[in-house]
Amino acid sequence: MSDRREFRDLASPERAREVVENLSIDPEPETVPLSEARGRVLAERVDATLDVPGFDRASMDGYAVQASDTIGASEADPVELPVAGTVHAGEEPAVTVQEGTAAEISTGAVMPPGADAVVVVERTDETDNGVAVRTAVTPGENVMVAGADIAAGARALGPGTELTAREIGLLSALGVDAVPVRGRPRVGIISTGDELVRPGETVDSAVGEIYDVNSYTIAAGVEEAGGEPVVYPHAGDDFTEMERLLHEAADECDLVLSSGSTSASAVDVIYRVIEERGDLRLHGVAIKPGKPMLVGTIGDAAYVGLPGYPVSALTIFRTFVAPRLRSAAGLAEPRTATVTGTMAVRERSQEGRHRLVPVGLVETTAGETLVYPVDKGSGATTSLVEADGTVTVDADTEYLAADERVTVTLFSPSVRPPTLLGVGEDDPTLSGLLDRLERPRYLPVGTREATRRLADGVPDVAVVSGPEAVPEDATILGSWEREWGLVVAPEASVAGLADLVDGEATFVNRERGSGLRASFDEALDALAADRGEEPAAVRSAIDGYELTTKAHESPPRRVRSGAADAGLGLASTAETLDLSFRSLGTETVTVLANPDRTAKPSVEQLADLLGEED
Amino acid sequence: MSDRREFRDLASPERAREVVENLSIDPEPETVPLSEARGRVLAERVDATLDVPGFDRASMDGYAVQASDTIGASEADPVELPVAGTVHAGEEPAVTVQEGTAAEISTGAVMPPGADAVVVVERTDETDNGVAVRTAVTPGENVMVAGADIAAGARALGPGTELTAREIGLLSALGVDAVPVRGRPRVGIISTGDELVRPGETVDSAVGEIYDVNSYTIAAGVEEAGGEPVVYPHAGDDFTEMERLLHEAADECDLVLSSGSTSASAVDVIYRVIEERGDLRLHGVAIKPGKPMLVGTIGDAAYVGLPGYPVSALTIFRTFVAPRLRSAAGLAEPRTATVTGTMAVRERSQEGRHRLVPVGLVETTAGETLVYPVDKGSGATTSLVEADGTVTVDADTEYLAADERVTVTLFSPSVRPPTLLGVGEDDPTLSGLLDRLERPRYLPVGTREATRRLADGVPDVAVVSGPEAVPEDATILGSWEREWGLVVAPEASVAGLADLVDGEATFVNRERGSGLRASFDEALDALAADRGEEPAAVRSAIDGYELTTKAHESPPRRVRSGAADAGLGLASTAETLDLSFRSLGTETVTVLANPDRTAKPSVEQLADLLGEED
Repeated sequence: MSDRREFRDLASPERAREVVENLSIDPEPETVPLSEARGRVLAERVDATLDVPGFDRASMDGYAVQASDTIGASEADPVELPVAGTVHAGEEPAVTVQEGTAAEISTGAVMPPGADAVVVVERTDETDNGVAVRTAVTPGENVMVAGADIAAGARALGPGTELTAREIGLLSALGVDAVPVRGRPRVGIISTGDELVRPGETVDSAVGEIYDVNSYTIAAGVEEAGGEPVVYPHAGDDFTEMERLLHEAADECDLVLSSGSTSASAVDVIYRVIEERGDLRLHGVAIKPGKPMLVGTIGDAAYVGLPGYPVSALTIFRTFVAPRLRSAAGLAEPRTATVTGTMAVRERSQEGRHRLVPVGLVETTAGETLVYPVDKGSGATTSLVEADGTVTVDADTEYLAADERVTVTLFSPSVRPPTLLGVGEDDPTLSGLLDRLERPRYLPVGTREATRRLADGVPDVAVVSGPEAVPEDATILGSWEREWGLVVAPEASVAGLADLVDGEATFVNRERGSGLRASFDEALDALAADRGEEPAAVRSAIDGYELTTKAHESPPRRVRSGAADAGLGLASTAETLDLSFRSLGTETVTVLANPDRTAKPSVEQLADLLGEED
Repeated sequence: MSDRREFRDLASPERAREVVENLSIDPEPETVPLSEARGRVLAERVDATLDVPGFDRASMDGYAVQASDTIGASEADPVELPVAGTVHAGEEPAVTVQEGTAAEISTGAVMPPGADAVVVVERTDETDNGVAVRTAVTPGENVMVAGADIAAGARALGPGTELTAREIGLLSALGVDAVPVRGRPRVGIISTGDELVRPGETVDSAVGEIYDVNSYTIAAGVEEAGGEPVVYPHAGDDFTEMERLLHEAADECDLVLSSGSTSASAVDVIYRVIEERGDLRLHGVAIKPGKPMLVGTIGDAAYVGLPGYPVSALTIFRTFVAPRLRSAAGLAEPRTATVTGTMAVRERSQEGRHRLVPVGLVETTAGETLVYPVDKGSGATTSLVEADGTVTVDADTEYLAADERVTVTLFSPSVRPPTLLGVGEDDPTLSGLLDRLERPRYLPVGTREATRRLADGVPDVAVVSGPEAVPEDATILGSWEREWGLVVAPEASVAGLADLVDGEATFVNRERGSGLRASFDEALDALAADRGEEPAAVRSAIDGYELTTKAHESPPRRVRSGAADAGLGLASTAETLDLSFRSLGTETVTVLANPDRTAKPSVEQLADLLGEED
């Protein structure tokens, strides 16, 4: 396709931002009930159409008087006035305050005719003949005159005001129950790709199906930016249907976002629709991730094509699209959209291309924010929760130095650094401990990688297990034992390690670097030594030794699904999943602390929990 | 009533906070669809129940190969392999990659049996016999193995996680479409007080009716704190109905809030209901505002009684109730709940009581935040939008010094200082100019007060008019003329000033300190001088001279409503409201800048707009 050539002439990020800013996506204003106005933005000025209060109003409980009658009154020499009647809030005064008289009055009540001031009840005494006033008041004292709060005709709230509880209060006071607000831009979301399945349905991994991540992620991002998302159904591999959906979305929405397609034919359909009904304004941006971003129009709707990988899609959405949605909705950029921090490690940038580097945040004991790159590859959806935002690196920057100050653009305004950053072994006891902490982040990278990262000083704690896992100078926070061995299908004839080596049973292993794997390899080495064989020979005799999985439950789950006869796992998992278990030993899981973070509250809390566990 | 005595034994704010924290208002968890989960908080841990990806997956477009077949391949010496077939994303591979062959593969596709690596398309060339591979790859290169993103059984998200776009992305990847979340506390809101009328209905000022401000304000505050407000109808003065509503709200909600009543009988009803069905745990707090705060239970529901005045009610709500609602909903305290700033002026504290002082914020040219007290009295609803939050002053603090650093608790997390703080005259041209600025705050305090405040250095600009309004050393930003005079009912026989003084026509004046009033008094003085009379005599001859109103449209609106024959006003208002006009002159409205703020962007923008206006 000829369009492919245009990728060679990539637009600068500044140009891309400008093109998106110039898209016409502003929705029509609408009128909403006051009870639904919170968070919306006034479309036009609201002037007061009445005086607040609408009448001269007592602002204290007490006695309405003519101020001139109280001249000279004092604690020592009160003035006594007959009480002509009472005025409550919410009633028309039935009494007139003549010279030399008073009327009892409640806060909020209408000042009776004749009265021009209120003496507060605390400065009066009831007497047999009326009231003794122990202080002099001036005209207007303790009275709020009509319109003193806001007067009819005055400017109350300007256009563009975001409505919080406070503005809703003032609108209530003015009697406004229908509010003219900026419309929310309607954003159609179309995910393309034959392999995508909606959450809740069943994926068939054999045919390469995966769940659609971008539709709901981008929909949530649209809501966060003040837009109204409309998620369209998948067209699957039916390109006629996909074309129809693009037309439908363009007719119904202010902006159409597509994402997810990696198939050339799907992209062809998008090009055709844009060519027929709109124009392509930008094709490809010199930025990583996001190179294949498309910007254009379809009919009256604006169109932006996002990359397929979730982290890339959310990054491009947040960098280019969300600001435009907020401006269309009339919302200000959130104050919490960025944080500044210090790079915890050096980050190279070989690319020569503008980069948005996904990063995670961790706080030091002193509350400073450290920033570290998250590089699981754009295809990993866990990066969505393991990264907190992105750092922008210019095309001509070679690297970010450790200790360099950087600004992080957060993925959502409400993102906050986790209270605890842990790395290491995957373990059921640990999962339970983590559940009792507030907002921890835990990366199950295994013992070997955890030890490396702890040495780099980035995480707060590292959880290690297996032979020789604990370095000599380690700061130990606590530990527990776990029994490990072979988790076996009830019908499989695997009584122990020897059966696995000598028999035909199929096996599922854990990955290198995990504590269980290290313990397992140690047990195999011992068996080989007993038999006088080469360790490599013993290992290769196991059918599935090279089939490795990442989480502690993964091998037992494969066993339960019938995919293997035995798997490396824990006694507790065998019990949970109702499988048989052949014990091969116990190992100690140890929580090591970053020596600089032992006084961090979350680390102290974890130490306390580990103490309870003992 | 005996209960009244307890007011003498006021609880400390710390004790009040503790009592509210101990209220049981935690709602049951619930399950919501993924599409509605944004902003909610996970009630329990979510573990992965499947591997992501569910299969070994090509992470680049290219050719699936056996890595061992590429050993030695280079740009200079490519390895040529026959292509056995193609695998697209979303389909089951129909091809097996035998030793010495390759299969074309798309990003996201299932790795075909036999293949263990992918060569990216950019490092290959199509040839007549297959594909020329120009680089060597290692096993696993450009392949994401099953479970590498997240493995079945691994901990995905912990309980208490607030769900943003990112977490929704991970839940999507796991196929989760129904999410167990913390419930939102249901909060019943009952406003008591005979005088209250719902916005949208008609108020009768003659009987002292006012619009209910607290119901919607507190409802919006409840939403901001993660609760679900239920606004109950007014009971009016029917105490049986009020009692019934309290019971109903207690049965239906986790927390019942009442506010607004100033009537002793209404309070009696609340006491009776609490005594019959629950217990009173706190009665009166040593804090201003908010002394009469009640805390207790009604049946299974918690109960808090808020003060009646809107600013007091919102302050007490935010200080004591909102944190408890957030903890019940599982939400963290918003990072933006407070800002720090510098007191712009000294603030005395005569009270000897813990105080929550309403304050406004204004930014200096350098972006520093200045804090100034807003004291319009708690009865003013405009304080809701003229104050941004509160500063807490201990009972034993005598005053806040000018330049003292203070922490401001904001009324809403999204509150931001206005871009411009203006004070002074109320004027239609000015209203239009303000509409063109982003988030200005304008306090229509009149010329005299504006001049005083500008001298104090707090506002950015002051808008003044009338004789001698512009000080000699003023920094003038711009000005315009306005024609003023008598706005007259069409049928009234008022041809000019003399008719007003000599005839029977009724009049509505503007308040002292406003520019129009100063111009009007000057005109009356000139008339008195012409006639050789005393100015006071001329003034007192006008029926309504002492009847003053606050906004520029107020006197004309009274004329239009038939309440007076003539009012002081502007030619433009007479035209807008379809009234007659008798010109008495023109006056200049001048915008003066705070000399320290002329470089503030909003001030510069206002100067530009004033330039256009000329």
